[in-house]
Amino acid sequence: MGGSKIMNKPIRIKLDENENPYGFPKEIFEKVAREMDSDYIARYTKAPTKEVSDALIDYIKETARVNFIDGEWITVSAGADDAIKLLMELRPERVVLFPPTYFYYYYFVKGLKLNYEEFPLIDDLYIPEVELKEGDMVFLPNPNNPTGHLFKDEEILKLLESPATVVIDEAYFEFSWKTSVKFLKDHKNLVIIRTFSKAFAFAGQRFGYIIAHPEMIEKVNSVKGDYNVPSFVMKLAVKALRNRSLFLGKIKEIEMERLRMAEELENLGLKPFPSQTNFLYFKVKNAEEIKDKLSEMGIYVRVLWDGIRVSIGKKEENDAFIEALKEILG
Amino acid sequence: MGGSKIMNKPIRIKLDENENPYGFPKEIFEKVAREMDSDYIARYTKAPTKEVSDALIDYIKETARVNFIDGEWITVSAGADDAIKLLMELRPERVVLFPPTYFYYYYFVKGLKLNYEEFPLIDDLYIPEVELKEGDMVFLPNPNNPTGHLFKDEEILKLLESPATVVIDEAYFEFSWKTSVKFLKDHKNLVIIRTFSKAFAFAGQRFGYIIAHPEMIEKVNSVKGDYNVPSFVMKLAVKALRNRSLFLGKIKEIEMERLRMAEELENLGLKPFPSQTNFLYFKVKNAEEIKDKLSEMGIYVRVLWDGIRVSIGKKEENDAFIEALKEILG
Repeated sequence: MGGSKIMNKPIRIKLDENENPYGFPKEIFEKVAREMDSDYIARYTKAPTKEVSDALIDYIKETARVNFIDGEWITVSAGADDAIKLLMELRPERVVLFPPTYFYYYYFVKGLKLNYEEFPLIDDLYIPEVELKEGDMVFLPNPNNPTGHLFKDEEILKLLESPATVVIDEAYFEFSWKTSVKFLKDHKNLVIIRTFSKAFAFAGQRFGYIIAHPEMIEKVNSVKGDYNVPSFVMKLAVKALRNRSLFLGKIKEIEMERLRMAEELENLGLKPFPSQTNFLYFKVKNAEEIKDKLSEMGIYVRVLWDGIRVSIGKKEENDAFIEALKEILG
Repeated sequence: MGGSKIMNKPIRIKLDENENPYGFPKEIFEKVAREMDSDYIARYTKAPTKEVSDALIDYIKETARVNFIDGEWITVSAGADDAIKLLMELRPERVVLFPPTYFYYYYFVKGLKLNYEEFPLIDDLYIPEVELKEGDMVFLPNPNNPTGHLFKDEEILKLLESPATVVIDEAYFEFSWKTSVKFLKDHKNLVIIRTFSKAFAFAGQRFGYIIAHPEMIEKVNSVKGDYNVPSFVMKLAVKALRNRSLFLGKIKEIEMERLRMAEELENLGLKPFPSQTNFLYFKVKNAEEIKDKLSEMGIYVRVLWDGIRVSIGKKEENDAFIEALKEILG
């Protein structure tokens, strides 16, 4: 497929928000809708329901190989963004960020007018030495976003040994199965955020959850409101967990494509970071210019900290991106 | 139906949250689910969509008989509770409440650790004289909750002439068609909250909206996050508005039942407040004790400021409540 062909037909290839390119199974969505009772739709439903709480606990215990998690250790949110916001609503004295990091942390920090400080990752990869105090709240995506790489357990443990609240944002957990859940037992200052927007193809329906010591969960519940997630969305999450092999199969497809894409980028002389997610990130001169040219060709990516972050789409979308990039880089 | 009969079979009559007793039409719910595209479910969808924004604008303009409202004047939330929270996240210096008032205001005031002050309504009906300052944020349900009565336009205008931000919570708008929307044009400090949880039988699915001057909407959008409402829920709201006569017909049923119930309560020597909502409120000695006895009989109501608030349910539910109350009051 040549670049000129791409330019001649109006296409729209969305590789800018790390969504799941395979969509959510229609038959599951409709089945959950059919199972919703007319009265249940109209009644307030406290979130989380026991049903979704139990399903999440089973999933967490199985995937993290721990047994101490129960209903007091989790709560739910309208996606991971809402989880981030709920934690920031506890109004830490200082939010600590390690850029390049998830850009939406800045959105809420500014919206909620919080004090924050940035400490850049060393070589864009390693957490720097920082003196953390009580009253600090650290936000760290793991795998990191936009780089996609995993931090080492030792790096996370070092943060946990400080008096700060440490929020590990595991939005892309299902791509690596690596988690800090095992540290929760000994570290009351650890909070883990998860989302159904990536692996479970739920981005438009907003579902996330928080795992932390019961004392922290109680604090979050004191600001979240009783009914912060629609009952339909909770049922949808339960069904997705019960049918998880459907979603996990798609993740393997995405991983295969990510490996192929990384090779293609290397063949173009670029250096993608080692990713354990559904996106790749590479530093490049004139990132903004390249993004604009791609956008004119109907291909959407994101520029973050002078690098380009591109989501892994379906094979034909990824091909179109690589062809377009070849044309632009000449 | 006798009280003893009620006590002999396990019933559960929920008259404690002012939900819509007729439920949400299943066929509409399932139709919207069928119309959701697999890819659309999985993609982030900025809230509000143009579709739901346009539908809300048409509805507001028609029901308030104004023409100055456009997309810049509204934003959406996960129910009215989320709208309340979003406004409180702007962190006013003082929240001003007029009890008896909506009890959930206190929940968020406390959760978000805001400064607040209470000025009781005169005779539980009229807004007292209060000196309001810039930095104040007034929350006032109209019709009021738990009393159910409407405040006069003059009372609201008096608040609006102060430098405070005045939030009028019109959760029960569809029961009276009375609104302060007409005051928005001349009062930048006015904010109106609405919900789909009552008239539109949506409580479990969480949808609300805020109407205010574009400057205020911009402030709210700076804290709300781009994706705060599921795309499915926005589609559901559009469909509900397009089928609104279905819901309005049920409101007329509820109103008829409310009139009948008020008479029944008066026959018991009680004095229900004049309600323009789907609930009634009356002061009574030993309100807590009566509530507990009703609860033992499977009938749930709420005690607020030494009075009982009871939702208007279906005819047979209301009958059961009246019979039980007769038995308790002896």
